[in-house]
Amino acid sequence: MLDTTHPHLAALVADLERALIAQDADAVAALFATDSYWRDLAAFTWNLNTCEGAAQIRAMAAAQLPQIAPKALTLDPAETVTEADGVAEGWLVLETAAGRGVGHIRMKDGRIWTLLTTLHELKGHEEPRKLRRPMGAEHGHDPNRKTWKEKQEEEARRLGYEDQPYVLVIGGGQGGIALGARLRQLGVPTIIVDKHERPGDQWRKRYKSLCLHDPVWYDHLPYIPFPDNWPVFAPKDKVGDWLEMYTKVMELNYWSSTTAKSAQYDEAKGEWTVIVDRNGEEVTLHPKQLVLATGMSGKANVPVIPGQDVFQGEQQHSSQHPGPDAYKGKKVVVIGANNSAHDICAALWEQGADVTMVQRSSTHIVKSDSLMEVCLGGLYSEQAVANGITHDKADMIFASVPYKIMAGFHVPQYDEIRRRDAGFYAALEKAGFLLDFGDDDSGLFMKYLRRGSGYYIDVGACDLVIDGSIKLQSGKGISHLSETAVVLDDGTELPADLVVYATGYGSMNGWAADLISPEVADKVGKCWGLGSDTTKDPGPWEGEQRNMWKPTMQPGLWFHGGNLHQSRHYSRYLALQLKARQAGIETQVWGLHPPHHLS
Amino acid sequence: MLDTTHPHLAALVADLERALIAQDADAVAALFATDSYWRDLAAFTWNLNTCEGAAQIRAMAAAQLPQIAPKALTLDPAETVTEADGVAEGWLVLETAAGRGVGHIRMKDGRIWTLLTTLHELKGHEEPRKLRRPMGAEHGHDPNRKTWKEKQEEEARRLGYEDQPYVLVIGGGQGGIALGARLRQLGVPTIIVDKHERPGDQWRKRYKSLCLHDPVWYDHLPYIPFPDNWPVFAPKDKVGDWLEMYTKVMELNYWSSTTAKSAQYDEAKGEWTVIVDRNGEEVTLHPKQLVLATGMSGKANVPVIPGQDVFQGEQQHSSQHPGPDAYKGKKVVVIGANNSAHDICAALWEQGADVTMVQRSSTHIVKSDSLMEVCLGGLYSEQAVANGITHDKADMIFASVPYKIMAGFHVPQYDEIRRRDAGFYAALEKAGFLLDFGDDDSGLFMKYLRRGSGYYIDVGACDLVIDGSIKLQSGKGISHLSETAVVLDDGTELPADLVVYATGYGSMNGWAADLISPEVADKVGKCWGLGSDTTKDPGPWEGEQRNMWKPTMQPGLWFHGGNLHQSRHYSRYLALQLKARQAGIETQVWGLHPPHHLS
Repeated sequence: MLDTTHPHLAALVADLERALIAQDADAVAALFATDSYWRDLAAFTWNLNTCEGAAQIRAMAAAQLPQIAPKALTLDPAETVTEADGVAEGWLVLETAAGRGVGHIRMKDGRIWTLLTTLHELKGHEEPRKLRRPMGAEHGHDPNRKTWKEKQEEEARRLGYEDQPYVLVIGGGQGGIALGARLRQLGVPTIIVDKHERPGDQWRKRYKSLCLHDPVWYDHLPYIPFPDNWPVFAPKDKVGDWLEMYTKVMELNYWSSTTAKSAQYDEAKGEWTVIVDRNGEEVTLHPKQLVLATGMSGKANVPVIPGQDVFQGEQQHSSQHPGPDAYKGKKVVVIGANNSAHDICAALWEQGADVTMVQRSSTHIVKSDSLMEVCLGGLYSEQAVANGITHDKADMIFASVPYKIMAGFHVPQYDEIRRRDAGFYAALEKAGFLLDFGDDDSGLFMKYLRRGSGYYIDVGACDLVIDGSIKLQSGKGISHLSETAVVLDDGTELPADLVVYATGYGSMNGWAADLISPEVADKVGKCWGLGSDTTKDPGPWEGEQRNMWKPTMQPGLWFHGGNLHQSRHYSRYLALQLKARQAGIETQVWGLHPPHHLS
Repeated sequence: MLDTTHPHLAALVADLERALIAQDADAVAALFATDSYWRDLAAFTWNLNTCEGAAQIRAMAAAQLPQIAPKALTLDPAETVTEADGVAEGWLVLETAAGRGVGHIRMKDGRIWTLLTTLHELKGHEEPRKLRRPMGAEHGHDPNRKTWKEKQEEEARRLGYEDQPYVLVIGGGQGGIALGARLRQLGVPTIIVDKHERPGDQWRKRYKSLCLHDPVWYDHLPYIPFPDNWPVFAPKDKVGDWLEMYTKVMELNYWSSTTAKSAQYDEAKGEWTVIVDRNGEEVTLHPKQLVLATGMSGKANVPVIPGQDVFQGEQQHSSQHPGPDAYKGKKVVVIGANNSAHDICAALWEQGADVTMVQRSSTHIVKSDSLMEVCLGGLYSEQAVANGITHDKADMIFASVPYKIMAGFHVPQYDEIRRRDAGFYAALEKAGFLLDFGDDDSGLFMKYLRRGSGYYIDVGACDLVIDGSIKLQSGKGISHLSETAVVLDDGTELPADLVVYATGYGSMNGWAADLISPEVADKVGKCWGLGSDTTKDPGPWEGEQRNMWKPTMQPGLWFHGGNLHQSRHYSRYLALQLKARQAGIETQVWGLHPPHHLS
């Protein structure tokens, strides 16, 4: 049923608006169902926060409404209200004292089941887009006129030396670049530092066969979407070239070949002292805000195995693996059975290496086609675009489902995938491969959100496992390395010229330990994960990803990362949180959690 | 009045479709009014051609329909029929034996007043966009797999050496780049050669203060539109950077630092032999098609004036002028009073030079704001975009007006501008400036189409002329140069350290004379102009721009150029004409004209 003037939902939204404007926390909470969720992205909490149930909602509203001072919250007249299975859904536009945003509401039995509120712009600091875009040519005449190029060169020359950046972003992959682009639009002086020679090298320098595992519709950066001839799964070098051009076109202050050596925070001044090595020159920077955008796949996790010092062959973490060209005819053992392990094994096999994959614990496998058709297609596909679901809109629809109930939305999709690909899964198990669909059968994306690992999106390597081209050792631990082999705990010896540790990455607060201090890393605690109490995502429940894109226990320290979708979407809220601080806007944070895990 | 089911127009379109499918030239012609126009862009004529009146239409239809074999021509169901002042307008979709396209129709008194037909794709050679986009990752496994990067590098290494390009484009500005991007999408092996070091240098190396005179909505390239934070009038260096990134991202085979030395056509083989100097290396290329995209502003037109050999100061064509920095406190005489002359004078004045502009004949001046609001705004503006008029749609609307009657559409707009800016024009005339609005008062764009010169879009320099900051000498010829001065024909001496010849550019067939031979240049004749018999656009009437984006009298030789709008829009038809030839599709050309003017 389509209904643009849904009277019940309209009345509920009107009640909510009235209660918000009146700053009446009790009245607000009374509109929510017993099981209900208010997810807020920086509009009401100056945090990424989900309140669950009326009590949490009441507490948050009581604390925040006086400062936030809502001005309006109405159904978006440009959107349609829909109703299905007793749930009415609508899009919202909202205004607070500080900003404007959009939202989404689901109504069940006359009360609010889910509410999403998001901040999209700060009043007086709107982005210079469309009607606000710059003129470029400065009409008139001015003897002191500087050209665009002269101004750009002057800024690049001064920033970091005569002028200090307000924000320093460490890490110039898609995360740092997307955030930097938003901060540039918001007029926040920013430097991005990255250790590589060129923007995009983060992708170029990974293993040769790497292509994006997510499809193009999911991967756009802010401001400049990929053109409609862009490959579905872009090869890594093409992604690298795009990031490099994006950095230039979006006019980012991007310091290549630059390594951050140390960072210290002066609480009294509210300022960092960061020492960087810029192409051999030591530069001391004093940003107010420090963003670690080194990536959730930034810090290699290499297991400690007896005999690593004895082994005579080569050992590499997957992030160091150059690709297969040098290993034709060699014996390679790949430890791990997730995305990188599969990609690396397949590429090595294609080059004629003798490859064994060691699977220590079960893995979630989903065929790329099935993932696209069953899970992503409604939101991120050519068909979705044809249906008017832009990636921005898809991001909002996706964000509108609170994490607490998201798994329940996903389980039926993966049930369907299991049915559809039953023969495939049976063949994998027959080959000895250990399969899972997540602790609660909720599949890939929940695994990603909870632990960022434990899966492979199959683009062909599984057939090689099934037919034995890639040899498999599964369900075994590793005893030690000998001079010439990997020895498993059942005594199996795997002769090896090369061992690849496709063993994933540590928590991003490890970067803070190295750069700032172990004490600050511990003060902040683990990054990523929801606290779902499933494998590798210990509780307590947090309801949002820990420490990502939001204030941490360390003032002035932020973490940014994730896949291209997250880099695009959440960079918006991180950029607005940073801009609000630069602009001196009151940003009272609700729901800042002390750490529960150190890494 | 809006009416999606306009029965009269629908009936007329149905009659037209029936007559076309029946290949009945008489029946087709009978549907057209006495004063009527069928503008075709490569769909029916394999040419850019406008038939005027029933007789021409009948002749074209009789000649072309048997080969074109129309399959369908219907009102586009996604579009709305509109009617105003007795003219009903509708959008068409069409199909021929070879391709698919879109069109536009205007009906007056029950018959066709204007018809536009355009080719948008060739059957079996559709562009790999949207649902046809490449996968990127090649799923499955293949021991001989090459990565995207390896394939790209191999192509770049072989093309021009082991493999020959089908098309060679000489000139890598926006024209060559836009065409190259389309040819890449169509799978036509193409090399673009350009003398500059980097793509975009065509803009970077022009005078320092240059910004686009056309607004951003008018300037998009194909495939990757400018982001919505792009400046209204982009500074030249920013345009240069965009072109450079576009060249990379669109994967063009772009040979920088390459000069074409000579070209000869072998009629028997249907192939060119082109010798180029690639960064010091002589390379011989054998393309089937040669496109001169050196720009309508490519070949400098420097007047011959007695005393040029005697003058002790510096002399430059405007295309060589580096900007004002070296001329602070110097005396500069700028010959000319069009766009470049004004921009250069203003920038010199801003740097403290003593500047005199010599206006030899009258100039059309229009304030940038007025041009945008009165003329362009309906099609190319933020408001137009908000109204659903994308630049692609605007291009089609613009193309739907036959050149013969276009001036009549423009005269009222410029009448309005004259009223609105009356004070401004009076002040200019009081300062001695000679004004015109074109021979028939049809203003800027008709001047551009007819002669490509004769105007200035005012972004501030006029105020400097009005208040005398830029000194003006108008209505005088130049007698000669002395050792130290420009001497006018009334004896006025203008002491000068620098003389800038802002005297425009010659016809593009001059490039063919240099590169191929004077005979071929003469065989082809003048490029640009409509044959309107107005100043600098001698007749006879041609109805399209001479020799641009369409077959010429020299087989295998094409000219491409124009502003960003034209480079974007007409590169589509030029690319499809080239692709059709590469694919061996029958391309019987209608309306190829022998030259009437040699330059």
